[in-house]
Amino acid sequence: MALIRARMFSKCLRRPVRFTAVVPYDGMFLPPREGRPFKTMYLLHGYMGNNSTLQLEGWPVGEWAQRFDLAIIMPEGENHFYVDDLARRDFYGEFIGRELVAMTRRLFPLSDKRGDTVIAGLSMGGFGALRNGMKYSDVFGHVISASAANVRDELASSTDEPNAVGATRGLFTSIFGDLDRVEETDRSLDGAARELASSDRPRPDIFFGCGENDVLKFPNRHFRDTLVSLGIEHEYSEAPGTHEPAFFIPFITRGLERALPALPEAPNPFLIDKD
Amino acid sequence: MALIRARMFSKCLRRPVRFTAVVPYDGMFLPPREGRPFKTMYLLHGYMGNNSTLQLEGWPVGEWAQRFDLAIIMPEGENHFYVDDLARRDFYGEFIGRELVAMTRRLFPLSDKRGDTVIAGLSMGGFGALRNGMKYSDVFGHVISASAANVRDELASSTDEPNAVGATRGLFTSIFGDLDRVEETDRSLDGAARELASSDRPRPDIFFGCGENDVLKFPNRHFRDTLVSLGIEHEYSEAPGTHEPAFFIPFITRGLERALPALPEAPNPFLIDKD
Amino acid sequence: MALIRARMFSKCLRRPVRFTAVVPYDGMFLPPREGRPFKTMYLLHGYMGNNSTLQLEGWPVGEWAQRFDLAIIMPEGENHFYVDDLARRDFYGEFIGRELVAMTRRLFPLSDKRGDTVIAGLSMGGFGALRNGMKYSDVFGHVISASAANVRDELASSTDEPNAVGATRGLFTSIFGDLDRVEETDRSLDGAARELASSDRPRPDIFFGCGENDVLKFPNRHFRDTLVSLGIEHEYSEAPGTHEPAFFIPFITRGLERALPALPEAPNPFLIDKD
Amino acid sequence: MALIRARMFSKCLRRPVRFTAVVPYDGMFLPPREGRPFKTMYLLHGYMGNNSTLQLEGWPVGEWAQRFDLAIIMPEGENHFYVDDLARRDFYGEFIGRELVAMTRRLFPLSDKRGDTVIAGLSMGGFGALRNGMKYSDVFGHVISASAANVRDELASSTDEPNAVGATRGLFTSIFGDLDRVEETDRSLDGAARELASSDRPRPDIFFGCGENDVLKFPNRHFRDTLVSLGIEHEYSEAPGTHEPAFFIPFITRGLERALPALPEAPNPFLIDKD
Repeated sequence: MALIRARMFSKCLRRPVRFTAVVPYDGMFLPPREGRPFKTMYLLHGYMGNNSTLQLEGWPVGEWAQRFDLAIIMPEGENHFYVDDLARRDFYGEFIGRELVAMTRRLFPLSDKRGDTVIAGLSMGGFGALRNGMKYSDVFGHVISASAANVRDELASSTDEPNAVGATRGLFTSIFGDLDRVEETDRSLDGAARELASSDRPRPDIFFGCGENDVLKFPNRHFRDTLVSLGIEHEYSEAPGTHEPAFFIPFITRGLERALPALPEAPNPFLIDKD
Repeated sequence: MALIRARMFSKCLRRPVRFTAVVPYDGMFLPPREGRPFKTMYLLHGYMGNNSTLQLEGWPVGEWAQRFDLAIIMPEGENHFYVDDLARRDFYGEFIGRELVAMTRRLFPLSDKRGDTVIAGLSMGGFGALRNGMKYSDVFGHVISASAANVRDELASSTDEPNAVGATRGLFTSIFGDLDRVEETDRSLDGAARELASSDRPRPDIFFGCGENDVLKFPNRHFRDTLVSLGIEHEYSEAPGTHEPAFFIPFITRGLERALPALPEAPNPFLIDKD
Repeated sequence: MALIRARMFSKCLRRPVRFTAVVPYDGMFLPPREGRPFKTMYLLHGYMGNNSTLQLEGWPVGEWAQRFDLAIIMPEGENHFYVDDLARRDFYGEFIGRELVAMTRRLFPLSDKRGDTVIAGLSMGGFGALRNGMKYSDVFGHVISASAANVRDELASSTDEPNAVGATRGLFTSIFGDLDRVEETDRSLDGAARELASSDRPRPDIFFGCGENDVLKFPNRHFRDTLVSLGIEHEYSEAPGTHEPAFFIPFITRGLERALPALPEAPNPFLIDKD
Repeated sequence: MALIRARMFSKCLRRPVRFTAVVPYDGMFLPPREGRPFKTMYLLHGYMGNNSTLQLEGWPVGEWAQRFDLAIIMPEGENHFYVDDLARRDFYGEFIGRELVAMTRRLFPLSDKRGDTVIAGLSMGGFGALRNGMKYSDVFGHVISASAANVRDELASSTDEPNAVGATRGLFTSIFGDLDRVEETDRSLDGAARELASSDRPRPDIFFGCGENDVLKFPNRHFRDTLVSLGIEHEYSEAPGTHEPAFFIPFITRGLERALPALPEAPNPFLIDKD
């Protein structure tokens, strides 16, 4: 199992970016993986986080990598919702959907098949997974979104006063552009879904959901309704829980089980079946 | 929440060592922690691992740090069972019990009280936690050991043929010294317990256990019997499970709940109580 | 010599930030440093870089740390010129001048004396060192700026077309605010100098310069003229060289030699004086 | 320019190992490097160091990578002189000469030609470069060794008293095996050279040297005499300097200039030719 921290230059962002990768190369007890491209999950963190947040919260990325024979790539989104900032020309969306995929496929032996390529995330990263999974559906065959921060109401109601997470209308405008028109653009989930519906791009397999005790379930239900009205297939799921790792992590596991076959468990030399 | 990767020079090992630290300094929603020394857990990884193994396996170190107001220090043991190598003068035990504690107390605002200082680990690290918790009981007030690799039978039966994890009599001799006499020394758990029993050092609070389906339960039970016969207080616990993170992690959580008070949960701004 | 990579939460930037620190704790041949606060240099990287850039370019931070008994802290500026972004409320300047200093003084035993505290940088970081050294002169007693990217002409002449480094009028406006008025604000070097001149804040010791073959010498000379006209003491120096590490690194060394006493060289057990 | 920190599992050492890699992928001003395997230098650190030591000392690895179109791989040797430890079955030599090369060629697009593959190092790493460059000359076409720690006298005269760097006869025996017979084995430079001379393996291009004021010049001259007597071609060079980065770094640069063609310098958009 390789753990890789990479710093590479991004033309989309005009500066070095970092990502962490877990790649299920062979270990002591694993057969070699030579000659076989890996399935891949691009996993996007939430607002006020970076890729270390997943580490602090105990995301079992090595377990997933081994169980699903899966490379996991964790980039950073810098509170930018993984959408292009047109005023600054900081292309956070294109970075995820194009440049990062190209970088990592050059660096690791990754499959370039849509069906082997997953985009996933939680909260702001769940927003980014849905948005970029729809926009770059030629790349990503599966979308797994836990508790997406579909912040349409927050954008509409934002003011010059910082909200609970320090965001103002100025910040949101810098990220999303003209807030009165953002729903018309692919920087909103509804806009990205309409664009997908009217395009001839392939439809990704979309699995998303939210905790029953999470205020974000309302905008997630709104987006479900949008997909229904547009005729875009998807699976939406609610379960007990709120906006926390104890909900996010099993949700992503469910999404992986749904999207990818699991390998048989490796033999455990310590196991005794009975006493 | 600070995540720190440090590389410092160790005189015990005559070369740079690495450790990872999680320190619950204030975050966006946390009150500042100024002027208050932190409780500390030194957390030791297992054989064939290093401190990244805990990251790959999804150990929730940030959650523990926040919940127990706890700094967590994760050093590396390089397959050396956290005992001194007298032939090479590589003092892995003294490194853990003395030098690392001094280093980290200089670097971070850590409490120097025994009752605030925990040594914990799994497998080889569970061995190291028991052994060094007993040997340096002036430093560590609490020991939490999950599925300790109490390898007494493996030492006795080792040969020149590598065993399932590549270990030979030569390797074990290099680590533990003369294998026919290791049980007489504090490089064995029994020896370290006898030394503790006959000393006037304080007795640490010892919590250890093993999975019911883990072959290591037998040498753990042996060590429990040793503690009973020596009159050293302890708590021993078995539960369903085998030699894997799904057993280790909840076991360490139980140990922390037993040893330290939990903070009240931080308010979750996303929580809704009912729909 | 400790090398520390830290990830801490910044309230100024509402997300985790990273910095690298080098701290001259004792090594194999060094006497212990207990009980003595360290002098500190905050070292700012350039445009299109991050703190790994200094590593790739071979900046001798360990040598400086040992020679000048100096902790070196290397934060990241994300192409933002180390000035506050008022529209987004991303306070890059306040982060450097206040929050980072507080964070690192809590983490390490750093002197809080102005005379022991240096801010330095190259190119965009040289701009940031001058600007924040003047603005937070209650914190920083010494400024060392190599080849400052004093981009006043670039701001004035920017258009919607990306320039050679991908910057547009939109990007500059996002960073500096209204470009027609930036010279009136402390987000320009001239503005920050005027503010310093009219304040009762202490004057920092300013050492700056540029390569004779670097086009940035012209705006550096302009700033020198501003300082002269405002009566702010400083030392300005040009020398052969262009915009590259071969100029920056010796320039910073000269600045350190000028600002701080060097320790006597450690004895070298390999040295022979004659054959 | 990619900077990569990798943690992979080593079967030779039965545990995770770390290495740092610099790979000259395209940057902002660099043309893409697609479809072209990179030349590679494996660069070995010295005693009491690890791969961060090179960073602290300011090794210009990014400059070399760009100038020579070269991937640079920096593994860790843990005071073990890069030779196999037969008693422990810790195969540090085989790790460098076989496993690391295979790992990194799987991970990055590296040339597998001998003429494109350099092994280099300083002090203990200079010893490791010479020893493994000779032993694995089917892999490495070029050897660059600065100030090799050819410790034959230290082995012969070692006692139970730690020497200036903490080494005892016990440590050396653990690393090199029976010290009375080490010169007969390929764990000595003379032994490895004799083995090369009597084999039909290809001869590597060997460039080595030492500072005139470094006590290690004597055992380096001894090894030069050995090569002469065995008829193994090489270039040996002394120059003013002692055992320090100020000698090592320019020496490795000279070795690279000797072994590999330099790319034309990238255009510097800041350069002015005259004032």
